[in-house]
Amino acid sequence: MTFQKEGLEELIERMESYLNEKKYVLAREAIVELEPIDIAYIMETLPEDTIPVVFRLLPKELAAEVFVELENDSQEKLIKGFSKAELKEVIDELYLDDAVDIIEEMPANVVKRILSTADPETRRDINNILQYPEDSTGSIMTTEYIDLKSTMTVEDALKKIRRVGQDMETINVMYVVDADRHLLGFVSIRTVLLSDENDTMEEIMDTGVISASTLDDQEMTARKFEKYDFLTMPVVDKENRLVGIVTIDDALDVLVEETTEDIERMAAISPSYKPYLNTSVIETVKSRIPWLLLLMVSATFTGQIISSFEDALASVTILTAYIPMLMDTGGNSGSQASVTIIRGISLDEISMKDIGKVVWKEMRVAVIVGAILAACNFAKLMLVDRLLFHNPITVAVALVICLTLVFTVFAAKLVGCTLPIFAKGLGFDPAVMASPFITTIVDAISLLIYFEFATTLLHI
Amino acid sequence: MTFQKEGLEELIERMESYLNEKKYVLAREAIVELEPIDIAYIMETLPEDTIPVVFRLLPKELAAEVFVELENDSQEKLIKGFSKAELKEVIDELYLDDAVDIIEEMPANVVKRILSTADPETRRDINNILQYPEDSTGSIMTTEYIDLKSTMTVEDALKKIRRVGQDMETINVMYVVDADRHLLGFVSIRTVLLSDENDTMEEIMDTGVISASTLDDQEMTARKFEKYDFLTMPVVDKENRLVGIVTIDDALDVLVEETTEDIERMAAISPSYKPYLNTSVIETVKSRIPWLLLLMVSATFTGQIISSFEDALASVTILTAYIPMLMDTGGNSGSQASVTIIRGISLDEISMKDIGKVVWKEMRVAVIVGAILAACNFAKLMLVDRLLFHNPITVAVALVICLTLVFTVFAAKLVGCTLPIFAKGLGFDPAVMASPFITTIVDAISLLIYFEFATTLLHI
Repeated sequence: MTFQKEGLEELIERMESYLNEKKYVLAREAIVELEPIDIAYIMETLPEDTIPVVFRLLPKELAAEVFVELENDSQEKLIKGFSKAELKEVIDELYLDDAVDIIEEMPANVVKRILSTADPETRRDINNILQYPEDSTGSIMTTEYIDLKSTMTVEDALKKIRRVGQDMETINVMYVVDADRHLLGFVSIRTVLLSDENDTMEEIMDTGVISASTLDDQEMTARKFEKYDFLTMPVVDKENRLVGIVTIDDALDVLVEETTEDIERMAAISPSYKPYLNTSVIETVKSRIPWLLLLMVSATFTGQIISSFEDALASVTILTAYIPMLMDTGGNSGSQASVTIIRGISLDEISMKDIGKVVWKEMRVAVIVGAILAACNFAKLMLVDRLLFHNPITVAVALVICLTLVFTVFAAKLVGCTLPIFAKGLGFDPAVMASPFITTIVDAISLLIYFEFATTLLHI
Repeated sequence: MTFQKEGLEELIERMESYLNEKKYVLAREAIVELEPIDIAYIMETLPEDTIPVVFRLLPKELAAEVFVELENDSQEKLIKGFSKAELKEVIDELYLDDAVDIIEEMPANVVKRILSTADPETRRDINNILQYPEDSTGSIMTTEYIDLKSTMTVEDALKKIRRVGQDMETINVMYVVDADRHLLGFVSIRTVLLSDENDTMEEIMDTGVISASTLDDQEMTARKFEKYDFLTMPVVDKENRLVGIVTIDDALDVLVEETTEDIERMAAISPSYKPYLNTSVIETVKSRIPWLLLLMVSATFTGQIISSFEDALASVTILTAYIPMLMDTGGNSGSQASVTIIRGISLDEISMKDIGKVVWKEMRVAVIVGAILAACNFAKLMLVDRLLFHNPITVAVALVICLTLVFTVFAAKLVGCTLPIFAKGLGFDPAVMASPFITTIVDAISLLIYFEFATTLLHI
């Protein structure tokens, strides 16, 4: 069954009446077959004080899965209300990487409580993962994978899978290591099932294994999943020893998060990592105001340029009317180039060494685009603005406007395509170089070109 | 091993000399352990006439995997050069959904050739998938999955898995159907391996299965993968009969493609679906020029507004200098709101019913942001522009500019947050409503507000 939100809302009403009438068996039956994220949504929508009640109705394993999907403040409240035994039960059922994610979001006293109830081995693993820098591959890996010694036979391997498989995040692919835990290769469960019982892992493994290093940037690792269509990827330390795996669901979350970050940066917003409706007004203001202030102040330059050409504008007043069009067209041309390049860099399609190719291409695009825009604009100026609206447009004025258009588009495309690549080369996030900054720079350039042509061609 | 592009480039040189010296065994050994996409990259980088040579060095199964990763024109050339037997071998080795993807990109005569060599069953399956509309879930599904009858025992199931598993895209999750192929539930390979030999599928299956329908939009289906962390999802027809599965690698490709499309639309570019460096100059021009023309023409309004207030501008010339700042700040404020909302809609966090919440939030954000910007700008106008740059700014002029700022930000946020939601409600792509369009609308609004305040407060 697919649940549309409408279906869920009916169910929520039903749940509410079950809970009011204390019909807990019915309440349990109504949700126990649903996906964890849908149960979490239902719990968050029900009155707040019913969260612990519903949570305790769920079977142990499902309860842990639902716990992962709850919002942080609901998790925190639940943890605070748990008995020590209850907390231990939930923590033991969690996959290690989920436990780490939750711990990273909790206040210090809650973290202490969680760590004190976890068994020593789990605690060690959690602390181990917590020490990796944020955004590193180590911080998103899990240590719950199956590793097989290269000397094991298929029979041994199947025994081990049956024994420990239940607690592991995946058994689709298992990694083969030597006695010192160096990564040698991988075998899929399919290969194991289809091989002879006496074959060793060394004989059946695939040695072309691509791994990530604990300190690799998490986005780089996630992009490898996209490129290679992996479901899991092994993580190794500096000595090529296997220390964990990353699973595709976490890689997918990283990709979505990093893309949202890129999009926000391109729109001059500081990334927030929270759904829009869950962010407070103050948080939203904070993420937006610094950029607006910066861009507002940098518009001082354009203002100064206009001020210094005041006399020219006063003598041919119609010129002022075309400032917005020239600025907007410049800004749009520039951001078309910058956004395309920034996305290309994100998707690993464009790197520093392609700068020559990119510039050459954008120059040709700019010439064609500029020429078409100028021609259309010339026709529009002479036919619409002059004949229809009776604006005082001479051929010379039209020429000034159209020549400015050509040069502005050229400059805008050039600035738009090079700035993101330079930013990347210097180690900055190219997305920050997108539309708003480029607009400000292109505004200034287009005004300077405009007034240069005006003073030369109109002799003012 | 992880191959950085540097490592690959050395390898390519080595390959080139092997091929020149006809050392085919060494050439084969140098690449046979690599990932298919890396082999494809090497082949595309080597001289064009070596592609068929290298291709024929690869083992059959790997060759098919590499084939999928090649660019369309290389695929086409290979297919045209294949003998009938060779073509059949490649097509038989391909996963069905990959075969369909390739066929969708090939010219008609090549498609005919492929279909005529495929065996009747494959041909029927391919034609079946080809009939689903582009962008539908049916068009990205594969029919190579394992379905198990509900009455089968674990022993029967394992036998079937061993028998047909080799040709299937995944055996991680298998779907349980009744005699009429209605979807009942799923079992994971893990559950099968850990269950008793005599248990039936009906006893061990999980019935909480979430499926997609063949005609569902592919992006909607892909978002479900992200939400539920699935690796595969069953696809059913109108009668809930199982007809195929979608795998996460295809879902991930859909997500990346749709996000790129969103980003391009937001920057006023028509989506191209091709990597930047593979697009010709003319294609790039075509994807950019229509929007630039449209936005250029729509700037006529702003021009007309300025023209009609020419006298006011002539009497207080300093007002002109602040037009760019007001327009840019309005545009940036508006696109901050619109981009946030568009991303929220894409991620399914915001829908039509949230419009009240969104507007109320943006109004409060706008008031705070507007007040801060106005205060900072007032200080800057009086201290920097007036005292430092000696611009003729009176308190009244500063007031006009700052009041305009407050109202412009308010209007921009309101337009920015509502337009995308309305667009979505009307069935348009909200991304088209992003920055450039909103900028044009906000430009006009901000100029009208500016001149209204100017004429009223400065009595001109």
